[in-house]
Amino acid sequence: AMDGAPPPPSPAGLSAYVAVSQLLGLTLLATTGAWLGRYRGGVAWHSPLQFNAHPLCMVLAMVFLQGDALLVYRVFRHEAKRSTKALHALLHGLALVIALVGIIAVFKSHRTKGIPDMYSLHSWCGMATFVLYLLQWFLGCGFFLFPGASFSLRGWYKPQHIFFGITLFILSITSCLLGITEMLLFKISDSYSHFVPEGILANTLGVLLVAFGLVVGYVLTREEWKRPPLAEELALSMDFKTLTEGESPGG
Amino acid sequence: AMDGAPPPPSPAGLSAYVAVSQLLGLTLLATTGAWLGRYRGGVAWHSPLQFNAHPLCMVLAMVFLQGDALLVYRVFRHEAKRSTKALHALLHGLALVIALVGIIAVFKSHRTKGIPDMYSLHSWCGMATFVLYLLQWFLGCGFFLFPGASFSLRGWYKPQHIFFGITLFILSITSCLLGITEMLLFKISDSYSHFVPEGILANTLGVLLVAFGLVVGYVLTREEWKRPPLAEELALSMDFKTLTEGESPGG
Repeated sequence: AMDGAPPPPSPAGLSAYVAVSQLLGLTLLATTGAWLGRYRGGVAWHSPLQFNAHPLCMVLAMVFLQGDALLVYRVFRHEAKRSTKALHALLHGLALVIALVGIIAVFKSHRTKGIPDMYSLHSWCGMATFVLYLLQWFLGCGFFLFPGASFSLRGWYKPQHIFFGITLFILSITSCLLGITEMLLFKISDSYSHFVPEGILANTLGVLLVAFGLVVGYVLTREEWKRPPLAEELALSMDFKTLTEGESPGG
Repeated sequence: AMDGAPPPPSPAGLSAYVAVSQLLGLTLLATTGAWLGRYRGGVAWHSPLQFNAHPLCMVLAMVFLQGDALLVYRVFRHEAKRSTKALHALLHGLALVIALVGIIAVFKSHRTKGIPDMYSLHSWCGMATFVLYLLQWFLGCGFFLFPGASFSLRGWYKPQHIFFGITLFILSITSCLLGITEMLLFKISDSYSHFVPEGILANTLGVLLVAFGLVVGYVLTREEWKRPPLAEELALSMDFKTLTEGESPGG
């Protein structure tokens, strides 16, 4: 009955929450830039400032871009499934490349300064998150983007992909908070406890990261904000249910 | 038709995941005890060891007990709703009391040693989590345990309570990881990067905390493992739907 009619507008609450998430995302990028620029000498590659590329890349990639990649199914509610999927994979792919640059920055900077790698809880959590994120990206492409996987295999993998996707987003934010704490205790351990501006600013960045995760997580888990299936998807899944469960579509 | 019949057994997968979660929970408590006992001199109240009561209480209360409180609706699937609710509130209440002891321990220890309070990202995250957890407990009791709230008010609050409950559990684990990182950089900053056993043990505790959160989160979010509504709850919610949405029960 709805064919040809314009798609219904997004729920009002959803648009407001998405707007807040983007405002928080830009604020946390600006705060990261302010911390590194104002207190840590800025960012450069072939220099002692190479390390600073690490927090900048990781916050941009593993928090902002990853978060926005999760939101595309809520924001583009009535676009073709295939183009929304492609955008989802593209944003995650971009995040992977930028995160890799951020990881190379910290390994190269350690090499230059003679600091050992991978001894801290931050490095364990961060590296595990990145490797699993890469794996999740390949699995996602294999199951959903390329035509090989059967309909029932996709149906089995989808809830796993969603659960581990949100988990990796949370682990990314957790790894950032661990990195902030490490960096403050390495750089300003003597003055941190005296509430110096750099400490307050970096703590605030931590709070903004949590707030961004909270708003994105809220949008993703609202049942009523899930992407409504398109007419043809609905028909397909009805047929599928009938075939596999022996239910009558009217049941 | 099912009246009088024995309740169906729990799904096999669910029991296995719950068993793994409890094994992880006991392992992480043992690991916390091993860290504090073997490397940090043990735990005592009126002594310089008072600080050590903080990590022990917080891991026990805000991770193990809070996690188990979230699991009761999955484990006691066929008990009366009212007694499951009471157990849920009781476990959270116990967690709140033990966490309060852990918070008093760190403030008292700071006072004795002349260390300022509440300057670190760990303290900001941890205190925010505790205060919101206390608030969530009072709201939960007010909406669900005492008879005042209407059926429709409960229906509106329930998804919020679930979202913020899981969020607070995640924030609790994050705060623990931040605390582990802080403690290692305060106590063994010189040897941490040389992969000393204490560093490896404390990092492993961090990994166990993440693993516990992951398994509990997986159990909570499986659609097919949600608590099935009892016959009388189903009838009630049918009536409610009919009344509020004007749907016919057969629709």
